[in-house]
Amino acid sequence: MAGVSQIKTVTGEGGYVLEDVPHLTDYIPDLPTYRNQLPDNPAYSTVKETFVNVDDAVAQKVVVHNNSPRGTHFRRAGPRQKVYFQSDEVHACIVTCGGLCPGLNTVIREIVCGLYHIYGVNKVLGIDGGYRGFYSKNTIKLTPKVVDDIHKRGGTFLGTSRGGHDKSKIVDSIQDRGINQVYIIGGDGTQKGAALIYEEIRRRGLKVAVVGVPETIDNDIPVIDRSFGFDTAVEEAQRAISAAHVEAGSFENGIGLVKLMGRHSGFIAMHATLASRDVDCCLIPESPFYLEGKGGLFEFIKRRLKENGHMVIVVAEGAGENLLTKYLQSMDLQDASGNNLHRDVGLWISQKINDHFAREDKMAITLKYIDPTYMIRAVPGNASDNVYCTLLAHSAVHGAMAGFTGFTAGPVNGQHCYIPFEVNSFMSQNKYYT
Amino acid sequence: MAGVSQIKTVTGEGGYVLEDVPHLTDYIPDLPTYRNQLPDNPAYSTVKETFVNVDDAVAQKVVVHNNSPRGTHFRRAGPRQKVYFQSDEVHACIVTCGGLCPGLNTVIREIVCGLYHIYGVNKVLGIDGGYRGFYSKNTIKLTPKVVDDIHKRGGTFLGTSRGGHDKSKIVDSIQDRGINQVYIIGGDGTQKGAALIYEEIRRRGLKVAVVGVPETIDNDIPVIDRSFGFDTAVEEAQRAISAAHVEAGSFENGIGLVKLMGRHSGFIAMHATLASRDVDCCLIPESPFYLEGKGGLFEFIKRRLKENGHMVIVVAEGAGENLLTKYLQSMDLQDASGNNLHRDVGLWISQKINDHFAREDKMAITLKYIDPTYMIRAVPGNASDNVYCTLLAHSAVHGAMAGFTGFTAGPVNGQHCYIPFEVNSFMSQNKYYT
Amino acid sequence: MAGVSQIKTVTGEGGYVLEDVPHLTDYIPDLPTYRNQLPDNPAYSTVKETFVNVDDAVAQKVVVHNNSPRGTHFRRAGPRQKVYFQSDEVHACIVTCGGLCPGLNTVIREIVCGLYHIYGVNKVLGIDGGYRGFYSKNTIKLTPKVVDDIHKRGGTFLGTSRGGHDKSKIVDSIQDRGINQVYIIGGDGTQKGAALIYEEIRRRGLKVAVVGVPETIDNDIPVIDRSFGFDTAVEEAQRAISAAHVEAGSFENGIGLVKLMGRHSGFIAMHATLASRDVDCCLIPESPFYLEGKGGLFEFIKRRLKENGHMVIVVAEGAGENLLTKYLQSMDLQDASGNNLHRDVGLWISQKINDHFAREDKMAITLKYIDPTYMIRAVPGNASDNVYCTLLAHSAVHGAMAGFTGFTAGPVNGQHCYIPFEVNSFMSQNKYYT
Amino acid sequence: MAGVSQIKTVTGEGGYVLEDVPHLTDYIPDLPTYRNQLPDNPAYSTVKETFVNVDDAVAQKVVVHNNSPRGTHFRRAGPRQKVYFQSDEVHACIVTCGGLCPGLNTVIREIVCGLYHIYGVNKVLGIDGGYRGFYSKNTIKLTPKVVDDIHKRGGTFLGTSRGGHDKSKIVDSIQDRGINQVYIIGGDGTQKGAALIYEEIRRRGLKVAVVGVPETIDNDIPVIDRSFGFDTAVEEAQRAISAAHVEAGSFENGIGLVKLMGRHSGFIAMHATLASRDVDCCLIPESPFYLEGKGGLFEFIKRRLKENGHMVIVVAEGAGENLLTKYLQSMDLQDASGNNLHRDVGLWISQKINDHFAREDKMAITLKYIDPTYMIRAVPGNASDNVYCTLLAHSAVHGAMAGFTGFTAGPVNGQHCYIPFEVNSFMSQNKYYT
Repeated sequence: MAGVSQIKTVTGEGGYVLEDVPHLTDYIPDLPTYRNQLPDNPAYSTVKETFVNVDDAVAQKVVVHNNSPRGTHFRRAGPRQKVYFQSDEVHACIVTCGGLCPGLNTVIREIVCGLYHIYGVNKVLGIDGGYRGFYSKNTIKLTPKVVDDIHKRGGTFLGTSRGGHDKSKIVDSIQDRGINQVYIIGGDGTQKGAALIYEEIRRRGLKVAVVGVPETIDNDIPVIDRSFGFDTAVEEAQRAISAAHVEAGSFENGIGLVKLMGRHSGFIAMHATLASRDVDCCLIPESPFYLEGKGGLFEFIKRRLKENGHMVIVVAEGAGENLLTKYLQSMDLQDASGNNLHRDVGLWISQKINDHFAREDKMAITLKYIDPTYMIRAVPGNASDNVYCTLLAHSAVHGAMAGFTGFTAGPVNGQHCYIPFEVNSFMSQNKYYT
Repeated sequence: MAGVSQIKTVTGEGGYVLEDVPHLTDYIPDLPTYRNQLPDNPAYSTVKETFVNVDDAVAQKVVVHNNSPRGTHFRRAGPRQKVYFQSDEVHACIVTCGGLCPGLNTVIREIVCGLYHIYGVNKVLGIDGGYRGFYSKNTIKLTPKVVDDIHKRGGTFLGTSRGGHDKSKIVDSIQDRGINQVYIIGGDGTQKGAALIYEEIRRRGLKVAVVGVPETIDNDIPVIDRSFGFDTAVEEAQRAISAAHVEAGSFENGIGLVKLMGRHSGFIAMHATLASRDVDCCLIPESPFYLEGKGGLFEFIKRRLKENGHMVIVVAEGAGENLLTKYLQSMDLQDASGNNLHRDVGLWISQKINDHFAREDKMAITLKYIDPTYMIRAVPGNASDNVYCTLLAHSAVHGAMAGFTGFTAGPVNGQHCYIPFEVNSFMSQNKYYT
Repeated sequence: MAGVSQIKTVTGEGGYVLEDVPHLTDYIPDLPTYRNQLPDNPAYSTVKETFVNVDDAVAQKVVVHNNSPRGTHFRRAGPRQKVYFQSDEVHACIVTCGGLCPGLNTVIREIVCGLYHIYGVNKVLGIDGGYRGFYSKNTIKLTPKVVDDIHKRGGTFLGTSRGGHDKSKIVDSIQDRGINQVYIIGGDGTQKGAALIYEEIRRRGLKVAVVGVPETIDNDIPVIDRSFGFDTAVEEAQRAISAAHVEAGSFENGIGLVKLMGRHSGFIAMHATLASRDVDCCLIPESPFYLEGKGGLFEFIKRRLKENGHMVIVVAEGAGENLLTKYLQSMDLQDASGNNLHRDVGLWISQKINDHFAREDKMAITLKYIDPTYMIRAVPGNASDNVYCTLLAHSAVHGAMAGFTGFTAGPVNGQHCYIPFEVNSFMSQNKYYT
Repeated sequence: MAGVSQIKTVTGEGGYVLEDVPHLTDYIPDLPTYRNQLPDNPAYSTVKETFVNVDDAVAQKVVVHNNSPRGTHFRRAGPRQKVYFQSDEVHACIVTCGGLCPGLNTVIREIVCGLYHIYGVNKVLGIDGGYRGFYSKNTIKLTPKVVDDIHKRGGTFLGTSRGGHDKSKIVDSIQDRGINQVYIIGGDGTQKGAALIYEEIRRRGLKVAVVGVPETIDNDIPVIDRSFGFDTAVEEAQRAISAAHVEAGSFENGIGLVKLMGRHSGFIAMHATLASRDVDCCLIPESPFYLEGKGGLFEFIKRRLKENGHMVIVVAEGAGENLLTKYLQSMDLQDASGNNLHRDVGLWISQKINDHFAREDKMAITLKYIDPTYMIRAVPGNASDNVYCTLLAHSAVHGAMAGFTGFTAGPVNGQHCYIPFEVNSFMSQNKYYT
């Protein structure tokens, strides 16, 4: 069904390109529209421009030359004058899938509160425990009261799981329950699942808006400015780096090593390093390195210890993947047990450094390894992420009410946009498909 | 000398406008240039593009229509291939003026570390105690070691003061000391002072780059995305709002009132409100309000207390200025003592609310007023602001080394730029001049 | 009814004195007892000594000489082998009165969870909004599920108020509802009220245990080691002192002034000062001072500013009360308006310092005044206070189940005890009655 | 030299026992004494009792019966009227050994500041990098200015190391440098080393006071109330438990497992559990357990997951040591590689739980293991520990000035005492020697 998922590309003068998003009317032609009653809401009484102009687009390219083409644009997010759902017609559901990320509960809360307070919707279901909750679990009725203070807790109020994606059973469940707005919060795999659900719904011709809210603490989505939870993660990572710095500085030839999240990208590691100013070396997936010999990690460590007496290393979990794979392959010949721990790059590098300095450099070092992953991802969103998640959730709600579907919401150059599923893909996808 | 400060505006096709910044060669024609030795720095060895393209500009407008004019652009910040100073020729100084703001010490630290580590400069002076430190105080020699951990402390390592700006004496001092790069960190008045210093230096024909680093915790500069310290301030404000929420919720008809910074703009108040999700009412300078009668604050409070039993109000310090002024004028007739406290909008509204409910509504309320101003502005920068301040300081250093002058550094749509003094003005200025 | 409240004093050899607490059997002679079923609880399976020995007493005096008399002792808190209530017979209620204090919700939670999990009790009522909630408000049924995470929030889950104490109506309400265990959490006035309720219940001959849980963030109860919330308050006060230190250090002749809680005692101020190591001067109610002349505050400030360039002052809210009273009396002659703000010792001293240095010493100072009171008392209990509150609540529950009444629970030299109402009085009482 | 280290036990009436500490005059008979000049210090001007009474003793036993013997007492810490050192005669040194602990820097700071400000001493040396620093490293001159803000940083300002204890070389170094007060901060092994140094000094007849400051984050010293850093550790542990709780609660059959410090005692684990109220199961060294079968850990986990859907387990690092040892012995037969990681009880139990539920119960669980050890021990002391460390350091200083030696300082029932080296032993010692 290639046609289903084709991006609606609009071009204009000066190299202008708009990567538009699908709309329910793309496959259900004669849908009635309704007046958006937002202007009647007293909370909007002092706002000058309530609605987004129908032609507003957001430029992806901000670094330009005098005559360079305008490049890609996305549809600006926000409330529209016409909506395709009446308040009492809407039956929304929210599901969270995959790992944890600070701000998840704020997104859930604000989809609920946005629907209730902005659009007068009062039927919102929480799907329990990820995709498989659609067909195997009880749902929970979500109201502003139920979600009132969940944004102050980490984790996901709805529960989550990996996998469990059965497209047909999910869409059957959506149909059976009479759901017509589906909000899907999750990472790479989850968003691919959302695309399949959207296509199946479109195939069946249902008036159901499917909205993705991309979740990746790693910030590894190229199109949007940053993913929610990223800022909080960088903040929390400071504790681990600070502890590593203290440990390193208290021992002769002390090395503090911190592993941070980032399987395909080093954003958390890099930003945490930039924020801390205490890190001597930051290893990320984007930049290959080697251990031994001139220009290698060991040489650098030795030099820093001589200069400064101690050092701090930050390593993204996906850094040095090629080295680790090669090492594990060589080990496989000797040991078929498949020790899971050895796949942790932080543990592996710790061991390598300890071995090297014990055997080759005869230099007494004291290495302390810290893996703060769960302590980072389980905190609630900080203020910055809470603002972000609030706008993100409201953008998603405005989009669904306006009849858009098959899109994810997210900020591009500071402006929230609607981005087609295909475009807002993760770096891991890019890696394999481009 | 109107000609001196004229903005260098360049126009192009499609409505393209570049608001360029002054350059030392504008008034010293035959300055020699040197090769930027950045590529020799091992820290840059893995970077693909070391230098910013000489034509790179950053678009201010990202929400566009298909055919809308391209609008204003700024020169992109970053290292240039050619520099106008040799390492051992540079003699830089840094001064901080005005109030405190989270991140100040990170900016100081990174100007020092940027000059030392990126450009091999080792003559950096700290001016003690604001502008007047140029002629009345001892200076402090700044090295990476001296500033090593100042970013973990609030306040300013250099000391600060208000006023003390004597253009001629300052430029005399700059000349006497042989300073050729001046980094001036401070708010509205400080940046106006920086512009005067720049003009005087230009008038004297000195090879001295003057760089402004705009500091306003209030975020009230329209051109740049946000000012440093703002994010930290919004984060810290959560504590006060949370306390107000707890106090309000523990008493019958409890009202928690928090005053936040923002004389001319309500950014901190609004963002803190959006982040908290616990605030019922946010009063900001941009949006006038009144107390009595239908649609007034008292009516709203009464309704919220009836609905919910308690409420939280956030007020920006500049909100309701017209009301307060009118009230103070009426009081002046009776009381000439000029009680300073009455100029605090938070105290004033607290008293008004208490009076109203005691006298008119006969409703027992419990109001708790919190003014967290100093507790907010005295914290060190959070991770996000530390990253920001680092890039900001390095941008400033790259700009000065490249011979630009009379500019402030700052991010526009996520990209650091050089902005002419005249353009990057504060809202308070705009208020008076537009 | 003097006889009712007489302390049951037992004396022994070597100057041993036990200040015992009342027991239900003091006035209801033939109460049946039941076996405490604690040993059947799997959670206690590994504990060697489940029960407190019936003769255990806790010594108040630990600093002794070889032959000094043993002094006062209190009955040790903890579970007894015999209890005076059957699980399904208990109908408990909890009320919180007065101001907020970190840990309040932990105490509430653990009275509920203690009764449920340790004694199998499942009828616990929350009285809403302080004493007056007994007769004017709805109650809330408290279960472990309802109170599950309230200890992570500040304030009181039950609501609070001042006053509203009508002994007869409260005991009527207790009788009407069939309540037989009353847990009263609150400060000085509240505990006096609890004593009256206990006496009225005793007069009516009711099988109702009355237990006081003393609450004073100020720590101003001489008998017990410290009051709950105190440790958290001292911790939170560090933020304010740190901000004051940063502000003071960033300006020439900068003075940071922090007001902390403590009307009758300077414990918070002193401990916060000891913890911070950044405070130059700590003013407390216990130690009189004066402003002018030799040995006065102004002289000390001047000297510290000369020595160090800046300084931090902490003032307890009750410090200098005599000075303030005298000042207010002299002002009353001129101004009958009764400005409430002038009763704030922090504001008053700030103004006095500013006036002094402006007029007499002609010395430019920059004084920043911080009042963090509400931001301190509204936080949830820290780990140390949560442990404390848990033991305190469980001690209270064990005492009531064992038939003791008319007592407060609290630690003496690290051991939780039962203390008769009369003994565990507040410093403010002592001040007036001794 | 058994006689050297004999405890000076004094007995009295009613079973009174005083475990006294050694004094320089025990082996140097005719030492001159000097007037303690504390009363001249303006900071002490308002204090009623400046000096501790020479007969003051602190009772170890506070839970007593009417006629029970008085039991063990210790000499009360604090300033004495007579001192055995003149200010300009004192040459002190401080060394830190072993692992990190919150508050270390506060102890260092306050020994320095106590000596300077209270006793006018200005020769204080810091020994760099633990015991071996006495003979192999440079020392650092310590002044109040140098240590001014070190209490706000984690770790040890002086550096530390394990071992390196050569009694003769250390005492040689002490003699060579003319040091006459030695402050030794560290754990079990360190204090044993201190005892040997004290004995060697005594053997040589030197006028050198040796003072131990016991450091164990685990709180595993039976005599004193708690060890410094413990309170901070329990506080920091809440983050890890909270993260485990969030992770567990977000997944079906989620288990959060946190390992906390405590090789010989479960104090941190127990207190962190009591403080959190979110932990279902706390495993400590003092209480043996088993995994399989009725009453085993697996059964308990299964029941809690069925009841509640998720659970949190806290395990002290020394818990289940017998199980782990037995397991490792059985593994040694198959695998001689000695994988270090397997000695981590947290990793081991994680694997056991995962294996059990995968193989035997066929129950899908999601277990997250968190080891926050370094992130806990590297933080600076909290307010409570800073107060403690301040009193501890000052007690140590007062003791040395008063001529006591061969003692450790520490609080017993809230009162700081001097305790002979032999008495204040660690639980690990007790384990082997009792």
